[in-house]
Amino acid sequence: MPTAQVPAGYRILDPKSLLALIGDLNDVRALIAGRPEEWQVREVGDGNLNLVFIVEGPRGSICVKQALPYVRAAGPSWPMALDRAFFENSYYRAVAPYVGELIPKVYHYDAELYCTVMERLSPHIILRHGLIAGRRYPNLARDMGQFVARSCFFTSDCAQPFEHKFDGISLFAGNKALIRISVDLIFTDPYLVSERNRHTSPQLDDVVSDFRCDGPLKVAAAQFGQKFLSQTQALLHGDLHTGSVMVTDSDTRVIDPEFAFYGPIGFDLGAFFGNLMLNWYSQPGHATPRDDRAAHQEWLLEQAKIFWTTFRSSFLALWSEHAQGDAFPAAMFSSPGDAPALKSARSAFVDSLFADMLGFSACKMIRRIVGFAHVADFDGIQDAPLRGDCEAGALAMARLLLTHPEQFHSIDDVLGAVPRSGR
Amino acid sequence: MPTAQVPAGYRILDPKSLLALIGDLNDVRALIAGRPEEWQVREVGDGNLNLVFIVEGPRGSICVKQALPYVRAAGPSWPMALDRAFFENSYYRAVAPYVGELIPKVYHYDAELYCTVMERLSPHIILRHGLIAGRRYPNLARDMGQFVARSCFFTSDCAQPFEHKFDGISLFAGNKALIRISVDLIFTDPYLVSERNRHTSPQLDDVVSDFRCDGPLKVAAAQFGQKFLSQTQALLHGDLHTGSVMVTDSDTRVIDPEFAFYGPIGFDLGAFFGNLMLNWYSQPGHATPRDDRAAHQEWLLEQAKIFWTTFRSSFLALWSEHAQGDAFPAAMFSSPGDAPALKSARSAFVDSLFADMLGFSACKMIRRIVGFAHVADFDGIQDAPLRGDCEAGALAMARLLLTHPEQFHSIDDVLGAVPRSGR
Repeated sequence: MPTAQVPAGYRILDPKSLLALIGDLNDVRALIAGRPEEWQVREVGDGNLNLVFIVEGPRGSICVKQALPYVRAAGPSWPMALDRAFFENSYYRAVAPYVGELIPKVYHYDAELYCTVMERLSPHIILRHGLIAGRRYPNLARDMGQFVARSCFFTSDCAQPFEHKFDGISLFAGNKALIRISVDLIFTDPYLVSERNRHTSPQLDDVVSDFRCDGPLKVAAAQFGQKFLSQTQALLHGDLHTGSVMVTDSDTRVIDPEFAFYGPIGFDLGAFFGNLMLNWYSQPGHATPRDDRAAHQEWLLEQAKIFWTTFRSSFLALWSEHAQGDAFPAAMFSSPGDAPALKSARSAFVDSLFADMLGFSACKMIRRIVGFAHVADFDGIQDAPLRGDCEAGALAMARLLLTHPEQFHSIDDVLGAVPRSGR
Repeated sequence: MPTAQVPAGYRILDPKSLLALIGDLNDVRALIAGRPEEWQVREVGDGNLNLVFIVEGPRGSICVKQALPYVRAAGPSWPMALDRAFFENSYYRAVAPYVGELIPKVYHYDAELYCTVMERLSPHIILRHGLIAGRRYPNLARDMGQFVARSCFFTSDCAQPFEHKFDGISLFAGNKALIRISVDLIFTDPYLVSERNRHTSPQLDDVVSDFRCDGPLKVAAAQFGQKFLSQTQALLHGDLHTGSVMVTDSDTRVIDPEFAFYGPIGFDLGAFFGNLMLNWYSQPGHATPRDDRAAHQEWLLEQAKIFWTTFRSSFLALWSEHAQGDAFPAAMFSSPGDAPALKSARSAFVDSLFADMLGFSACKMIRRIVGFAHVADFDGIQDAPLRGDCEAGALAMARLLLTHPEQFHSIDDVLGAVPRSGR
């Protein structure tokens, strides 16, 4: 059984060594105030891969995230590349100029310890938990549409000379350990019989075995898998589900970009969109006598629409203002007569992202129901037959998106289909 | 005016230092035989960027290619990254296991001198010159179809786990100086008024100014330019025109892969295909009273067809036998019922390469007629009005390919259109 190899200089932080580390960072000390001996340290990580500490002092608090060299749930027998912390930090740095207000502030990155000292988001909660609880966030969809538009536009060939993008591609192509996880868990395993998979059984047994011998469905998923690996449109977050977003009533922050790499923009769009859909399909499982969640479902569909339309209009607006890249070079389209053709070409490009969003969202929905890593939206439904019904609705929708993309030309086409397949 | 910066250890080779270098390579010495003092050294480079020496001795001869730190025609005032020699060597090494018999043998690469000691190809000549002279090469089209199929298939996600490809992407993303040349000279400058451009004037003045205000044409070219920068389907040669192929009656060798990078497979296909087309359109300019070149044109069209059909059948055959990559993972399609869907998906992928081949070939044709670097096929036609006629035919065909791709579903659609637009 392999055990994790760690580089010299790496050690797993404990409260004592953590305080020593922070005590040396003058800016952070000033922010927390007081003396390290007075600070309170709590380990709050609930994910699979990292330690997360909160350090609190008289005036403020910070968050410290350290990569572990193995999968936390499995222990040292399942090693996991530490350098994901490096890629996470690299992503934050790359997109901060464009979406700085939508990510946490990073105070310090320690390359030897693979640990990031960053803003503590408080009183933020994980968006997924808020949506499961039926809460609404008025700025969320617009913030997220802006986030994807800005982070992707400014790292794409639309905005930058390709040399800058190629430097980024070269760097992030190293994030292979985490990309391997995406390749296997999103695009392969769900369509196979694999020990890593699970599903609500026996309720979904038939539909799952049906999926695994549905040639056209598997082909469609595989085509998106191929696109995932062979398009370098922009720097992606790489795991932009509702568990990677922290919110208050008015603030939205994107976290955990450790899966970052250069890929197809539709993959980030689809992650968020697909997870809104998953939450929609899970709502009957969270209904109470006082709230059947129908109004929350309506709200969710509105947010899905706002997310897409904000992305679309923001991306196109940025392109009008900042066309400094090698894609459709501004100098080639400088005569007034070029404007209509250029405008329609840009629209066509964004339309292709819409189609990609739907396909990738479907892949994401499927993997969360029949693959290894599930979502609390469904897992929190104790009643298995009810959970199975909710999940079956989401699977039906995902299958339709993958096998009949010609039915979905606009966001309204999608939203119109949701209740039909889900109820 | 900038002058070329060269790394420590680099020096421009002359016959004396060249002999000292080779004299230290035991294998190469044995191949040439005799003593260095007896060897004959000739500098034969006729390109813009490199020194090329032939070293001959009693038993054999070798070729030495050294990158110069500037554009040879312009001198030290136009610097040019030396590391293209490194990327050329890296390409040869990467594809040698798959197409070893279609590239020169590489005996030695000197990382400090940016120079490659390789097989001397003799009595080979540059394919372009042979085609201009109206010669025929019975194996050429099949060899080149095989070359692109094998070099691209085995470096793609069809054949390899993505980790290997991502390592390659990371490496070749460094070849920015030469990729910049392609971006500017192929996808941008031809559609602008630029000092670097030239065309047969005044014969083509109208058509060229017409091109530069043709919105849909420019959009189509720009879409292929965007694809060039954002698809990493396979490791490409990057400059696969008929000047990068050396031939005898029976042997075919691909040389000069210094533009290598991970890009869309259609770019390599289109380079070769487009240059066959250029040669076709140039033939009236090379007709003699004894030979109107009509038969040679027929032969060229047959070769274009054999090139594509060989590529297509080879790529699909390789995919049936060596599906060890992450694209369409074999394990996902292992049940007998999957076969039809998988087969049709693979065909659809190859069809997409056909469409890309046509689009990229059109971009290549245009840049060779209205851009910076022209081809001997046309430049060798002294009679300007005749040359202009030939070039106008090629431009019309290229424009049709870019603006009406829906007319070209099969190779026969293309070949049927060639004579109509060219005569």
